[in-house]
Amino acid sequence: MRPIASAGIVAVGTELLTPHRIDTNSLYLTAQLNEIGIDVRSKCVVGDGVADLESAIRHLLDQVDVVLLTGGLGPTADDLTREAAAAVLGRTMHEDAALVDQLRQRFAARGFAMPEINRRQAQVPEHAIVLPNAHGSAPGLWLDHDERVVVLLPGPPRELQPMFEASVRGRLAARAGARVLRRRVIKIAGQPESRVDEVAAPIYEPLLRQTPSIETTILASPGQVELHVSARGTKTDELDAALEQAVQALARALGASVFSTDGRAIERVVGERLRERGLRIALAESCTGGMIAARLTDTPGSSAYLTGGVVAYSNEVKHRQLGVAPETLNALGAVSEAVASAMAEGVRERLRADIGLAVTGIAGPDGGTPEKPVGTVCFAVAGPGTYRETVTRRVPGDRDVIRQWSVMVALDLVRRALR
Amino acid sequence: MRPIASAGIVAVGTELLTPHRIDTNSLYLTAQLNEIGIDVRSKCVVGDGVADLESAIRHLLDQVDVVLLTGGLGPTADDLTREAAAAVLGRTMHEDAALVDQLRQRFAARGFAMPEINRRQAQVPEHAIVLPNAHGSAPGLWLDHDERVVVLLPGPPRELQPMFEASVRGRLAARAGARVLRRRVIKIAGQPESRVDEVAAPIYEPLLRQTPSIETTILASPGQVELHVSARGTKTDELDAALEQAVQALARALGASVFSTDGRAIERVVGERLRERGLRIALAESCTGGMIAARLTDTPGSSAYLTGGVVAYSNEVKHRQLGVAPETLNALGAVSEAVASAMAEGVRERLRADIGLAVTGIAGPDGGTPEKPVGTVCFAVAGPGTYRETVTRRVPGDRDVIRQWSVMVALDLVRRALR
Repeated sequence: MRPIASAGIVAVGTELLTPHRIDTNSLYLTAQLNEIGIDVRSKCVVGDGVADLESAIRHLLDQVDVVLLTGGLGPTADDLTREAAAAVLGRTMHEDAALVDQLRQRFAARGFAMPEINRRQAQVPEHAIVLPNAHGSAPGLWLDHDERVVVLLPGPPRELQPMFEASVRGRLAARAGARVLRRRVIKIAGQPESRVDEVAAPIYEPLLRQTPSIETTILASPGQVELHVSARGTKTDELDAALEQAVQALARALGASVFSTDGRAIERVVGERLRERGLRIALAESCTGGMIAARLTDTPGSSAYLTGGVVAYSNEVKHRQLGVAPETLNALGAVSEAVASAMAEGVRERLRADIGLAVTGIAGPDGGTPEKPVGTVCFAVAGPGTYRETVTRRVPGDRDVIRQWSVMVALDLVRRALR
Repeated sequence: MRPIASAGIVAVGTELLTPHRIDTNSLYLTAQLNEIGIDVRSKCVVGDGVADLESAIRHLLDQVDVVLLTGGLGPTADDLTREAAAAVLGRTMHEDAALVDQLRQRFAARGFAMPEINRRQAQVPEHAIVLPNAHGSAPGLWLDHDERVVVLLPGPPRELQPMFEASVRGRLAARAGARVLRRRVIKIAGQPESRVDEVAAPIYEPLLRQTPSIETTILASPGQVELHVSARGTKTDELDAALEQAVQALARALGASVFSTDGRAIERVVGERLRERGLRIALAESCTGGMIAARLTDTPGSSAYLTGGVVAYSNEVKHRQLGVAPETLNALGAVSEAVASAMAEGVRERLRADIGLAVTGIAGPDGGTPEKPVGTVCFAVAGPGTYRETVTRRVPGDRDVIRQWSVMVALDLVRRALR
């Protein structure tokens, strides 16, 4: 059989053709496919009309070895991906009795009777392989067609991703050629994209011309820059060794602002450092309003190093819950280094933590003054031990950007405190 | 001539087929096209290969009235959109002398001689209308083809958007007929997608066959279902009235679980109700770890109705900051209705709010027991006044889903408390 080398992705759903929604599943799938040496040649978004769906599948089957469809596997009348794929491949559909049972059990476990409508999800084209869905009711389907493959996956990422990893990736990898793509991600805090590029370009430019050739991509988000380095070839060890060298050279040049060379998020890095050192943190958040706590508690087991937090949105809460003196609040304002310090000390002591982290700032759009414009944010770290750090930063951008950026700066201050 | 009613969009560029880049021009174009009554039926992303490009254009020309291509109009050898469009439409290309002059002048104005390679940008298919580019060197092209149209636009948004508005929107609107598209969004909390559909289908199905015809799309995310209803026609007032009737009928049938009929998010609805009634809320979060606070503070001005919150991740913080009795914690466990109640009362009193909202649950993956499996979450609302509510829910899903879903349930309990 010919190896599978190229893929097309179809995202299904009329809502993805509105100005408000975008298909992001294809980004995940592209990364996964590239890793096993499969190139994405074309991506489409189509609505829930069966004619458009059939036409898109036919169009891609002419061009690529595997067509992956995401979405349209729900129980309702506008979920037509199963029917469209069966029609293009000339297959009849039948109800899979085992699937009906599984669906019934799934509903029963939640205390519901299965609505009759959900039987549609047990409709399977002949000769299809059913892909179990551990996180939802829509099963996936794998359809062989001559030397090509059509794969139907559910739309929600939390269902699609585990299904791809459990049931699709291995099957495709077994039929892909020996070429693979390897990738490493370096993450940098608190540097503008242009500064990172200025430092990194003299290092990554020659790497593109070496063998194996290493490609570099820069991506920026609020408070964070990522450098993605990747290489293609048949020898995984050789590629990994070349990437490791590149990562080390880049990390050396970029210095202390690099917080991860393996793609880990800042909250993971901070969490692991706290755990290693047996330290616990407590948070006092004003303008970030719980976002730092939400990020840290995203990681399972974070209760080992996070005692808790106070969202101190009003001055009264800053005073009553964190012990910030009303005189300090009145004299210097809630957005001041003195208040940030007092919040960090207060939360550290009252929530019995080794480290107190505080953020207070003006996220806007209102509340700015000439001396303290929107985007002014004060941070304080109290602990571990006698360590103390207080800084003020100004960031341009809207409320959302200012808040996200503040979360990054705050977590990076803790990372630096733990070096 | 038949009016232009449907569009397809092709984003051209190999970089848009990597895991890191996404086509967002199509969102801008969709909003613009919808406003003038043109529906987007399909979107594609293709690389810089001329065969793939031709195949995508052909595929869309079979389905829609206008095909818009973005990108691939640069001067280099991999900019092939012009050639591909000309080939599909069977046109020969010629060099446009006036365009060469303009390009030369553009370069001269910046003190450069035009590189010979840029002459490619003056290649124009016969019978094409040239669309001036005020912000770059790549001219756009308008190609009539039978009753259909193919439009070539540059990729950079700062070039594409002014060109669309100056040279494309008016031409399309003139041929679009008087049709417009109007849309409304209904949001529902705490119901599974299939249950919502069971109730809504008998109402929306006949609406599809009425005049004006109303289309309905269902979208689900953790703890929330959205119904998008839309109608197309020439009379905005009539469409809006028909949509209003549909929204009312659907909202009546779906009852109290509908929290918004104008697309507003739950945190906005809750915030506005609090503001209207002059009430303030305080949050005590365990398994949601600050996510409810982060959502509420997303809205500017939320300090008017949110005093603050306590992220009570450890039992010690539940006791010290919220006054939960150690005996209650020991006897019933941190995930219990008694503890949720005590947290809500505690945060209400200590943070001087009218309403205390508390969430405590097992988000997993660890910490589940046979009696309290992962996904068990207890909620309590204390206030306003003597209002009290305590509930326990179980939800399947991973940590992330359980947390997002808990945020929705919690905010919806407050909404119900404020009716």
